[in-house]
Amino acid sequence: MESGPPGGSGPAEPGPRLRGLRGADAAASASSLSRFGAEAGCRAPAVAAVLPAGGSGERMGVPTPKQFCPILERPLISYTLQALERVSWIKDIIVAVTGENMETMKGIIQRYQHKRISLVEAGVTRHRSIFNGLKALAEDQPNCRLSKPEVVIIHDAVRPFVEEDVLLKVVTAAQEHGCSDYDLEFGTECLHLALKYSHIKAKLVEGSPDLWKVTYKRDLYAAESIIKERISQKVCVVMDTKEDEEHVGHCLEEMLKTELNHVKVTSGQDLQQIILEQCYNFVCVNVMTSDFEETQRLLNMLEESNLSILYPVVVISVHFLDYQSVPFGQKMEKVMQIREFAKEVKKRNILLSGLLIYFPQVENNRGLEEQKLRESLRQGVTIIAALIKERNSGLIGQLLVA
Amino acid sequence: MESGPPGGSGPAEPGPRLRGLRGADAAASASSLSRFGAEAGCRAPAVAAVLPAGGSGERMGVPTPKQFCPILERPLISYTLQALERVSWIKDIIVAVTGENMETMKGIIQRYQHKRISLVEAGVTRHRSIFNGLKALAEDQPNCRLSKPEVVIIHDAVRPFVEEDVLLKVVTAAQEHGCSDYDLEFGTECLHLALKYSHIKAKLVEGSPDLWKVTYKRDLYAAESIIKERISQKVCVVMDTKEDEEHVGHCLEEMLKTELNHVKVTSGQDLQQIILEQCYNFVCVNVMTSDFEETQRLLNMLEESNLSILYPVVVISVHFLDYQSVPFGQKMEKVMQIREFAKEVKKRNILLSGLLIYFPQVENNRGLEEQKLRESLRQGVTIIAALIKERNSGLIGQLLVA
Repeated sequence: MESGPPGGSGPAEPGPRLRGLRGADAAASASSLSRFGAEAGCRAPAVAAVLPAGGSGERMGVPTPKQFCPILERPLISYTLQALERVSWIKDIIVAVTGENMETMKGIIQRYQHKRISLVEAGVTRHRSIFNGLKALAEDQPNCRLSKPEVVIIHDAVRPFVEEDVLLKVVTAAQEHGCSDYDLEFGTECLHLALKYSHIKAKLVEGSPDLWKVTYKRDLYAAESIIKERISQKVCVVMDTKEDEEHVGHCLEEMLKTELNHVKVTSGQDLQQIILEQCYNFVCVNVMTSDFEETQRLLNMLEESNLSILYPVVVISVHFLDYQSVPFGQKMEKVMQIREFAKEVKKRNILLSGLLIYFPQVENNRGLEEQKLRESLRQGVTIIAALIKERNSGLIGQLLVA
Repeated sequence: MESGPPGGSGPAEPGPRLRGLRGADAAASASSLSRFGAEAGCRAPAVAAVLPAGGSGERMGVPTPKQFCPILERPLISYTLQALERVSWIKDIIVAVTGENMETMKGIIQRYQHKRISLVEAGVTRHRSIFNGLKALAEDQPNCRLSKPEVVIIHDAVRPFVEEDVLLKVVTAAQEHGCSDYDLEFGTECLHLALKYSHIKAKLVEGSPDLWKVTYKRDLYAAESIIKERISQKVCVVMDTKEDEEHVGHCLEEMLKTELNHVKVTSGQDLQQIILEQCYNFVCVNVMTSDFEETQRLLNMLEESNLSILYPVVVISVHFLDYQSVPFGQKMEKVMQIREFAKEVKKRNILLSGLLIYFPQVENNRGLEEQKLRESLRQGVTIIAALIKERNSGLIGQLLVA
């Protein structure tokens, strides 16, 4: 639908603003000046967003419309909604979807707990979808729960990486230049639509390269990698010993800090706070307690929080092989329990795997022993980095050995 | 360098042809009609390619120039060279690199065994780099090993996905329309350069969306995913038993065929041939022989071939846990030898991991036992798919359990 001709008035495809030479992207903004223009500029305006999402994704080479294509098993549009929801001053978000996708969309809103969303039916063109969204906002029905906005942001459903600062720029521009027709020479169909049908004025605002649109299959790949990278920036190390600073668990934490130099490694002293701050990676070191006690405590906390609703959370349960007291095979067999835990927490979008730090005993040579331990720890860090980076649910429940 | 202004005659950045509304990409071609024009059209012309690769990659957000950014640990430009080398009728490939990257480039050519490549020094602009390449081809030196071409393809070093059919289109167009200035309204700096300095004519040819240029960091991510996907299309199952069709190894092969429906699963009957056909994924089932015999045979063959020079080859050594005769721990300990093999073959770009298919014994219930086995096999397939998809060297030497 999205790329159909808008009533013969030119291509419905977003115009060159989206593919500028220097990678500048832009967002179209519309200020409903006919009603609120006179008041704008002196206080925070009421803002709503309209997302045309009626596209069929034909260029994607996949049967699913692109806005519903999964990234880390979650539909693309949910990431875009999340980006808009984060912005507290956007009061309402109107999504225009085709009738056949209405139920899918409702399911997405429910499953990922999106707030402040209203659905309208998409039109046969992108223009009409936007128009339907604007109309819903303008309607003067007695039981309409939508508040009438002063500024409406039109945002593509397939641009998941929009940041608050760009949206703010859009709104500020809408207030400042709302009556101007500046930049209309780059005019897009959104701008024309706004002018023609809604008696509102429009302006083009520069975006960042991050604002790019998911169009081809390669863009989905890129989006997935970007999202994976973003949620891999923080790792929390949870440990059941606070006293023994000499312990190998602390050495592991130190090595994580030195080897993963782009990653923020924090100690899980205040887990609740760390979960609130949206850390999606946990290395849980079981030292003092027997087997999985610490890991289970962490898993319970994660399950109680809603952290894993939006992104898969990686938990790596670290165990040390005490080669002097327990035979390798026996320890392995014990730690293999992890398979069952992993299967269970996978239902909650938690990806659990085990890591056994195993260092061979070296007779009568403490220096060599320490060196071997450092090698093991370093390999442990490599494995942790791989598990966090790939976030592949096919590897859950595995016990990896460093 | 690449994005510097080309002597004040417009942006050095490739023009809108590369970012057309419908995703049409294009390649510029130049036919050196001043010398060979009269003969062109009636036989296969002598073709050379010039790759300007003097760019600094400033928009990438990474310190390495983008043509040298690694994808699966190999520099991007090597993929582009590989794409051109595959085309037998391109006789010479001239790469223009800056003086400071000359040694790096020589190292790349040597390491990845590129053929038919000559290096010239890049100019301060993309234009001048192309000019230097053309000049090297045109030079009339007695000991010059380059053959004078009739058609020169100018190809960006950061477009790794160019296909032979597009290149052929370029050459055909160069022959047919060489004297025309058709499409010059989309003109790019290459076209202008060709016209101005080399007394040659130029034409714009439509490419495919795959021809896109690696510009931003997200493009590197996309390129890596595309390459990983491409080399994951074929899986070869090698087995040391041909007779016992009932054997669980054959069940695994069958399940690979049904579950991985986008992947071509072949039997390793004629391994030499399969290696020649560039299969980069091997599942090696050790059934009859003890431990790693079959896997080692395969690894030797892979090491002797040059298969892993260009892409990391994934080898998964599959073992079955005979729970009736060997205790779990003992088997595990034995199969852990894989860590040493993996470390060794990693040096040859072979990513080896182990997979232990483990199915718990069910007393007096053959139906349930079979069901459990199928579950194990299915999980084995999931693990195999994950290892092939991610191709992460951080997970080598691991023994995964299904």
